[in-house]
Amino acid sequence: MGKRVVVTGVPGVGKTTVIEKALALLGREGITYQPINFGTFMYEVASEEGLVRDRDEMRRLDGQTQKRLQKTAAQKIAGIEGYVLIDTHTSVKTPTGYLAGLPEWVLRDLMPDTIVLVETDEDQILLRRLGDETRVRDREGAKGIAEHQQFNRALAASYAMMTGCTVTVVRNPDFLLDNAATDLADVLR
Amino acid sequence: MGKRVVVTGVPGVGKTTVIEKALALLGREGITYQPINFGTFMYEVASEEGLVRDRDEMRRLDGQTQKRLQKTAAQKIAGIEGYVLIDTHTSVKTPTGYLAGLPEWVLRDLMPDTIVLVETDEDQILLRRLGDETRVRDREGAKGIAEHQQFNRALAASYAMMTGCTVTVVRNPDFLLDNAATDLADVLR
Amino acid sequence: MGKRVVVTGVPGVGKTTVIEKALALLGREGITYQPINFGTFMYEVASEEGLVRDRDEMRRLDGQTQKRLQKTAAQKIAGIEGYVLIDTHTSVKTPTGYLAGLPEWVLRDLMPDTIVLVETDEDQILLRRLGDETRVRDREGAKGIAEHQQFNRALAASYAMMTGCTVTVVRNPDFLLDNAATDLADVLR
Repeated sequence: MGKRVVVTGVPGVGKTTVIEKALALLGREGITYQPINFGTFMYEVASEEGLVRDRDEMRRLDGQTQKRLQKTAAQKIAGIEGYVLIDTHTSVKTPTGYLAGLPEWVLRDLMPDTIVLVETDEDQILLRRLGDETRVRDREGAKGIAEHQQFNRALAASYAMMTGCTVTVVRNPDFLLDNAATDLADVLR
Repeated sequence: MGKRVVVTGVPGVGKTTVIEKALALLGREGITYQPINFGTFMYEVASEEGLVRDRDEMRRLDGQTQKRLQKTAAQKIAGIEGYVLIDTHTSVKTPTGYLAGLPEWVLRDLMPDTIVLVETDEDQILLRRLGDETRVRDREGAKGIAEHQQFNRALAASYAMMTGCTVTVVRNPDFLLDNAATDLADVLR
Repeated sequence: MGKRVVVTGVPGVGKTTVIEKALALLGREGITYQPINFGTFMYEVASEEGLVRDRDEMRRLDGQTQKRLQKTAAQKIAGIEGYVLIDTHTSVKTPTGYLAGLPEWVLRDLMPDTIVLVETDEDQILLRRLGDETRVRDREGAKGIAEHQQFNRALAASYAMMTGCTVTVVRNPDFLLDNAATDLADVLR
């Protein structure tokens, strides 16, 4: 028995908080999920193989090595028994465009049961980003955020086609964090 | 000579009526399509294999068996000569999210020529659902229906990438059923 | 060293002009891209094989032959060293619906680094098409153009899933061609 659920959301949507609250809710019912950050997990694989000494070095690896590390990470995660929550991105915004977080070679090994898109209105995300002093403010406006969220839905659809996983949207609007956590817990339960 | 056309639409859009009218139009021209309901066809395959005695038992089959049945059904349908219309869903709404009706392992065997999305405005679909006493009314509002139709377009795009099939939208708005049937007949002809 | 970038856009968006301006900008910096029109390249492959004598004959080839030619063209383009810009369509509008310009069997061989969608508002595209006397005016209105552009984004998402390429939108609105060319040059650089 077990389940592999991927939880994603654009920066500033509040994904981490929603995950924490949802896992706390489930914990009270005796349901324990192992949370895994895909990026961190990949770094640990690279570190064990002696390829990198710190996370900055990850970016300097050539494309083929990164691809192999992604695959190895996906295989190892798929091998974990029980309930696993994978914290990652449907896509990452790079200087040359959106990059799929779960390309075909990752999906084939990871084979998640469900992909969750944590979303809210682009205006709210923009304000949340502006309020976050620790982040480098990028020039992306509300329109760009809306485009990113829309692109993520289309990407998630192609993930569903490739793996047979379900795709669901969990809304995390202002002042309604408890609802978002309950909705995510419903999917995870 | 022949054609394999998949026709889909969310519950309440009037897909069945549009199909019936379109096939009647084509019948008068001497073009005969064999209509196949994908779910029923899969059930018949399972039934012949002695796996189930009624349709309710289909849901209780484990994931691997369901996947194998989907593949077998797709292969058998692809083997049928002539004009075949496959009545199914681009995606089904489940408690954990949208589930692709034509995942990769089905598409590879089915290889349709065209996928048709029967659509109309979410408000009209909502009213049609409310008027249908035989259905269990779900709590999905107009926004949810719009989201579902949008997700289906994205899914259909990934089906087109995987198979090379064409994708077309047939609108079925209130009072214009004849137009919808004519549009579908144009695609099937 | 090199890069394979696919540039696409619906008819009338001004793709060719944007490409020419962007390549001129890069030329001044000493960056030379080899521009390849995918359709023309495929025709040349077919021509060399003695399959066709002119471009009209391309359409009369059977599906299997077209597929094989697409694959051969993709493989040959992937074999070209250095910077290559592939001018093609994310999807083509046909009588039975949208047809993917880069289906799975093309993508696997082509493996582009980036796919660019040149876009602008549907109203502007409509007016540009009406002003172009050399084109056969089709009956597609602004709504149809919007639908086509939206479908192309969804298709591009599935291309990103399949290949790991990035996807970016370059806007080409009225009176701002220089901005569009600069944006495309930034992606190509």
